[in-house]
Amino acid sequence: MACCRNCFCCQCCCRRGETRTPEELTILGEIRDEEDEILPRKDYESLDYDRCINEPYVEVLEGLDNKKARKYEAVRWMMVFVIGVTVGLVGLFVDFFVHLFTKIKFSLVADSVQKCSDKGCLPLSLLELLSFNMTFVFIASVLVLIEPVAAGSGIPEIKSYLNGVKIPGIVRLRTFLCKAAGVLFSVAGGLFVGKEGPMIHSGAIVGAGLPQFQSITFKRIKLDFPYFRSDRDKRDFVSAGAAAGVAAAFGAPIGGTLFSLEEGSSFWNQALTWKVLFCSMSATFTLNFFRSGINFNKWGSFQLPGLLNFGEFKCLDGDKNCHLWTAVDLAFFVLMGVVGGLLGALFNCMNKCLAKYRMRHVHPKARFFRVLESLLVAMVTTVVIFAASILLGECRDLTSPTTHNTNHFQLANSEEINSTIRQFFCSNKTYNDMATLFFNPQEAAIHQLFHQDGTFSPVTLSVFFLLYFLLACWTYGVSVPSGLFVPSLLCGAAFGRLVANILKVKLGMDIYSGTFALIGAAAFLGGVVRMTISLTVILIESTNEITYGLPIMITLMVAKWTGDFFNKGIYDIHIQLKGVPLLDWETEVEMDKLTASDIMEPNLTYVYPHTRVQSLVSILRTTVYHAFPVVTENRQNERDFMKGNILISNNIHFKRSNIVSRAGEQRRRCQSMKSYPSSELRNVCDEQVAAVEPAEEGEDLLQQMLERRHAPYPNLYPDQSPSEEWTMEERFRPLTFHGLILRSQLVNLLIRGVCYSENQSSATQPRLSYAEMTEDYPRYPDIHEVDLTLLNPLMIVDVTPYMNTSPYTVSPNTRISQVFNLFRTMGLRHLPVVNAVGEIVGIITRHNLTHELLAAKLRQHCITI
Amino acid sequence: MACCRNCFCCQCCCRRGETRTPEELTILGEIRDEEDEILPRKDYESLDYDRCINEPYVEVLEGLDNKKARKYEAVRWMMVFVIGVTVGLVGLFVDFFVHLFTKIKFSLVADSVQKCSDKGCLPLSLLELLSFNMTFVFIASVLVLIEPVAAGSGIPEIKSYLNGVKIPGIVRLRTFLCKAAGVLFSVAGGLFVGKEGPMIHSGAIVGAGLPQFQSITFKRIKLDFPYFRSDRDKRDFVSAGAAAGVAAAFGAPIGGTLFSLEEGSSFWNQALTWKVLFCSMSATFTLNFFRSGINFNKWGSFQLPGLLNFGEFKCLDGDKNCHLWTAVDLAFFVLMGVVGGLLGALFNCMNKCLAKYRMRHVHPKARFFRVLESLLVAMVTTVVIFAASILLGECRDLTSPTTHNTNHFQLANSEEINSTIRQFFCSNKTYNDMATLFFNPQEAAIHQLFHQDGTFSPVTLSVFFLLYFLLACWTYGVSVPSGLFVPSLLCGAAFGRLVANILKVKLGMDIYSGTFALIGAAAFLGGVVRMTISLTVILIESTNEITYGLPIMITLMVAKWTGDFFNKGIYDIHIQLKGVPLLDWETEVEMDKLTASDIMEPNLTYVYPHTRVQSLVSILRTTVYHAFPVVTENRQNERDFMKGNILISNNIHFKRSNIVSRAGEQRRRCQSMKSYPSSELRNVCDEQVAAVEPAEEGEDLLQQMLERRHAPYPNLYPDQSPSEEWTMEERFRPLTFHGLILRSQLVNLLIRGVCYSENQSSATQPRLSYAEMTEDYPRYPDIHEVDLTLLNPLMIVDVTPYMNTSPYTVSPNTRISQVFNLFRTMGLRHLPVVNAVGEIVGIITRHNLTHELLAAKLRQHCITI
Repeated sequence: MACCRNCFCCQCCCRRGETRTPEELTILGEIRDEEDEILPRKDYESLDYDRCINEPYVEVLEGLDNKKARKYEAVRWMMVFVIGVTVGLVGLFVDFFVHLFTKIKFSLVADSVQKCSDKGCLPLSLLELLSFNMTFVFIASVLVLIEPVAAGSGIPEIKSYLNGVKIPGIVRLRTFLCKAAGVLFSVAGGLFVGKEGPMIHSGAIVGAGLPQFQSITFKRIKLDFPYFRSDRDKRDFVSAGAAAGVAAAFGAPIGGTLFSLEEGSSFWNQALTWKVLFCSMSATFTLNFFRSGINFNKWGSFQLPGLLNFGEFKCLDGDKNCHLWTAVDLAFFVLMGVVGGLLGALFNCMNKCLAKYRMRHVHPKARFFRVLESLLVAMVTTVVIFAASILLGECRDLTSPTTHNTNHFQLANSEEINSTIRQFFCSNKTYNDMATLFFNPQEAAIHQLFHQDGTFSPVTLSVFFLLYFLLACWTYGVSVPSGLFVPSLLCGAAFGRLVANILKVKLGMDIYSGTFALIGAAAFLGGVVRMTISLTVILIESTNEITYGLPIMITLMVAKWTGDFFNKGIYDIHIQLKGVPLLDWETEVEMDKLTASDIMEPNLTYVYPHTRVQSLVSILRTTVYHAFPVVTENRQNERDFMKGNILISNNIHFKRSNIVSRAGEQRRRCQSMKSYPSSELRNVCDEQVAAVEPAEEGEDLLQQMLERRHAPYPNLYPDQSPSEEWTMEERFRPLTFHGLILRSQLVNLLIRGVCYSENQSSATQPRLSYAEMTEDYPRYPDIHEVDLTLLNPLMIVDVTPYMNTSPYTVSPNTRISQVFNLFRTMGLRHLPVVNAVGEIVGIITRHNLTHELLAAKLRQHCITI
Repeated sequence: MACCRNCFCCQCCCRRGETRTPEELTILGEIRDEEDEILPRKDYESLDYDRCINEPYVEVLEGLDNKKARKYEAVRWMMVFVIGVTVGLVGLFVDFFVHLFTKIKFSLVADSVQKCSDKGCLPLSLLELLSFNMTFVFIASVLVLIEPVAAGSGIPEIKSYLNGVKIPGIVRLRTFLCKAAGVLFSVAGGLFVGKEGPMIHSGAIVGAGLPQFQSITFKRIKLDFPYFRSDRDKRDFVSAGAAAGVAAAFGAPIGGTLFSLEEGSSFWNQALTWKVLFCSMSATFTLNFFRSGINFNKWGSFQLPGLLNFGEFKCLDGDKNCHLWTAVDLAFFVLMGVVGGLLGALFNCMNKCLAKYRMRHVHPKARFFRVLESLLVAMVTTVVIFAASILLGECRDLTSPTTHNTNHFQLANSEEINSTIRQFFCSNKTYNDMATLFFNPQEAAIHQLFHQDGTFSPVTLSVFFLLYFLLACWTYGVSVPSGLFVPSLLCGAAFGRLVANILKVKLGMDIYSGTFALIGAAAFLGGVVRMTISLTVILIESTNEITYGLPIMITLMVAKWTGDFFNKGIYDIHIQLKGVPLLDWETEVEMDKLTASDIMEPNLTYVYPHTRVQSLVSILRTTVYHAFPVVTENRQNERDFMKGNILISNNIHFKRSNIVSRAGEQRRRCQSMKSYPSSELRNVCDEQVAAVEPAEEGEDLLQQMLERRHAPYPNLYPDQSPSEEWTMEERFRPLTFHGLILRSQLVNLLIRGVCYSENQSSATQPRLSYAEMTEDYPRYPDIHEVDLTLLNPLMIVDVTPYMNTSPYTVSPNTRISQVFNLFRTMGLRHLPVVNAVGEIVGIITRHNLTHELLAAKLRQHCITI
């Protein structure tokens, strides 16, 4: 039945309308209600991960020597260490208070239940529990009101950030405070949420903030280290911070590092990976150090694993025949993987529908409604667990009920496990199995399912699974900080334990129940989140048992494949719902039928090397692009180009289509030019070139050439403007590409008055240092904040010292896989497409490479052929 | 003292002569005796990891759909699974026979010693041991004679291969057989070598061979999958195979994956990583499955770790106060890391001197001498361990000698440990500690040091360490298959145990000796091999104890940093001695002062799109380049270029130096042209272009332009040859870059008669399919094997359908770090440097990016400034 609902649901979620044109597809982030699909929005900015090599940067470089470089490296190591320690402390803080609140809550309620089950005042106990939970959830929800980005697990946001998309507010200090405090209350409030996702998010914020923090809040303590003031360094530190978050949450430093690599760093940079691993280790061991000190008074010892750990899976000591799993079990694990994948897909599908409902009906309303929803969820959850424990729990014997023939598969039943058993509503020597799962922190319930030797009744497990599944699905997306790992694990563990019960009791197989519970947890979690390598490693590290590697991996693989058949992972779904233009790992093989010229944006807004202030202002005010190619025009060159220059057969196809699209582009460009005064938007070199006589042939030509090349850039700026009277030839003048300049750099130049007047040479223009260029990082002023009255519109700006003169470029007939790899690996933001003679014919950004756009282009391509 | 020797030695190893010019530096791989430094040789080929996008490939692409793509993916998964299983079986084979031989040998010798220590016939026992060892080593040595590449650990070779350098014979079946059989005998022969390195090498060969094997040996079973026939796929499979090798050797699937990533795959490709991990897991669990079945008769169980495992570190069960390590111990670990780094540096330095001695004095002689050396090493080793056991061993009590106050740090002393104790020459209830270490397989000795509770005397440990250090150093490099991991671990464990003894017995500290032995092992191994991330993970996985993460990592980090202060890791040293042009992870920050134009090779040999057969043959026969840019010349274009085209200020500096270097280049080119008949080496387009009348202006120009672009490539091939009479202007004609064609592709075209005659159109030229282009992979025919009599020298070859039309390119003023990242990440072989107007000005290969060349260029740069 699950499968059937799933299919239906999947269909309802599936994309239809495959015939849309790409123009439609790129319209700014609309939600198409009739088709229920959200396309990548174009208003997300990318990170500037690639270095901008301009004169200020080169100046810094020239000042570098190995000694300084080593010092910078040392500072970087110190930074990651500090980040790791801080993340560890944050984890400690969250853990400590969650523990404290939960303990207070459950002990009070347990007392009350104990008393009331005799006196019959159970509604009073329920009320007590309700008041606790709703107060906590209310606080969490109000914190999210203050900073809406703090809602949810934060993993989609961090994934987007590491992928190279700026999401506003995601790494702010305020977000950090709301998230860290909020998760504490939402977990303590008894919601079915985990603290792992928010821990990862908090770690990422610490990583982003700490190296910047030093220079902003504390009166600009300068580290004499301009490198930290860039998106490149920030993203590296965020990688480290996120990894530390995983490490602290799961006690899995290697898993954290792999998480960071899997989600973010496309380039396997050894130095960075090593730092990330160190950061993760610092976090894990900081946490362990303090926890062993505080909780067990064993200061100086480090033996406790992370916040979430699965206890020790082991056979009873004397038992030689016991094994945790065998080859036969593997077949069951594969089946469980399939079921986990299906359940995960169902979960994701339901959650997606819910999220869409929320976007349409809850979010547009006053924010107050979100708080109400959280409170409603808290109330329902509380009532459900209370009612289920009373009505559906079974009383089981405390003594081991396993029959004699299977006793060598007895779970190693420790005191710790027995201490979390709940006897609610049960007579002595028995315990309430439902209450044991519901009236404990989720981690304790997972331990119960993994290690409790007393069986849970199949009915209890089924009911628990169903309730948990539905409530967790409802809860994820409510506006409180909420992780998804622990609920998924718990839900899956119940499923796994159910399978184990059936196999063991009904079929009488010799199996180790704990392993099946673990595999069930892995299968469901894998089906929901669809992470692969890092999740495998995280689970192996959490169990601290390398021999579980193969079964966990196979289960996760099967679960992922099964789930992917229906929909995406939950994080990807939420990323898609946000309209983030995420780039996958690779393009599909089929996409290689397309070339760069098929997907590029041919409609360019460009600047000349020397441009008047007024033109710059009008360009900046009338466009939304974040980078502008710096180009020159040359009619002379164009004429020769027309005369049949160097066209070899396989370029022909491209050039033709390119010319056609450029004709359209020029038309559009001319139209748009009318809208702002752009008399300077012309090549300043043109006229002078025309004036130069054809040089005489001969030996001294070389000399002339060299001399001319050393002359400063000519200071001419014709007033002739591009107009409708232009001939076709004029319109097709090629634009030779020289470099890229960012919007933020242009605004910076304008604000700092970097320009020269018409009758002076460009050498008189003030020069900015690297520090001045990056001073306003990360929030550069907007063009609309610039006071235009301070600018002389007739002055001229020479952008050549500040542009990036050597960005990576591709030729128009480069295949998509190559373009994609280059873009993704190098963390690019703009990739100019330059033809064989150095003319820019288009530009590729993240938005041109999203899966949706590529698929649309491919359909076009297939139709054309 | 070690430090002092170290310093001396380091100086002797250090590079002097920093003032060499880069021209000197690039001379083909000579050994400069007076300076003891070996430079990267230029005769190593790179792998073609980057895809060559040409017409045959595009044809294949167009035929692809998602269904086929999925099928290919499934085949790929199957392949990695088969590779994993095979590597696991190879590990099983090696392990089984090593065990068998060692067991027979030691049991016979032990009996004999037992008898003879009473009778006084010890020389007879020695003789018996000698005959065993020398026979085994002789066999191993002879196997290496058959295939010299099988000598050593193989890790340097695999590292080079994964880095992108083809090393002849490294992934051949013969190498595999010699290596796998050889290592068995060299380990059984009692040499101080490990089997881990050779296991990794064997795994890599399986990875390289298996997917190819199917189509060569078994009558070309076609998988309908042309993709496996490329360096790209091969390298991916080698990554997987090597990872499986590590996984089988250490029981460390995650460590294996990271090893593969660290050494090879520069691009973190999720799909590949996932396959590599799966392959590693398959190998680990295949091995475990069979080992638990064969050795313990527990078929279907998987609980045994890899070939090398460190046993379980744990406190005695009842003991609550025991901890494996504390915060205080960390300080000692750091110190041990420093000492380990120093010892490692000393080891590497000595081994380097030895290797150089061998290269000069042993290798030039008859191969027989290498066998003699192996036998000498075997003899000395045997005599030393025998003598040391008799003369220097101490008899210790079998009962625990620990005093009462430290007994909660007692090591968990299992039966297994006690079973490997040797009582040689000692009375009852005592054992000979030296013999216990020497007369056991090395793995057992490591277990003894990690877990034996009875202390070893400090004298024994010191002597053992010293002897082992010297002999292992001598042995590594002898021509037998020989790993370095286990000897380093054993040596380091002795050092660590020595530290533990001193701290525990002399200073009375509460420490866990096993941890110190482990940390000592990590420190020494880290000092020798300098691997970082993967080694950390391998060691963590081998101990199966996540809590050792931090101490191991810190120790390895400190050891690496200390060692790097003096010299490189042992593998890098041997790579350098082989002259392999390895690329590091990143360039130093300082190198960014250089740009692409500073390091590129400006002296180009190029081909035209349409070239006569005779010209191609002469180019191929007179040059050694593996790729040729396809270019066209255009004098018209050049004239305009001279007239002051588009030069913006910051390009001027480059262009000038570029012109100067191109002047020199042209001179050289003209000279070299005289050496072969090259009448066709001219642009075929030129004359036609000149003949075209200047087109009239106006609207129909566009039409004309489009028409001309659709005309097939003109069939002109002037007989005018470049000559000394050329004017300077003619010499400076720019070469517009269109694509790259590989030597192998050109030879293939010639052999298959892909050409057309002068009076036909190029459309009549036969077309090759992708399968035909790659049929001869991996050994393409050489130009010297081509029968020239079959070729008509006047026919014309149109290379345009076969060239790579869209390789990545960089502009001349791109900074080195950008060039390096692009080259390294994309696995490039040739990187054309193309200026702003599309002219090729140079080419960058692996040889231009080696550290040595960059350093020389940087010195030049600094002097110029």
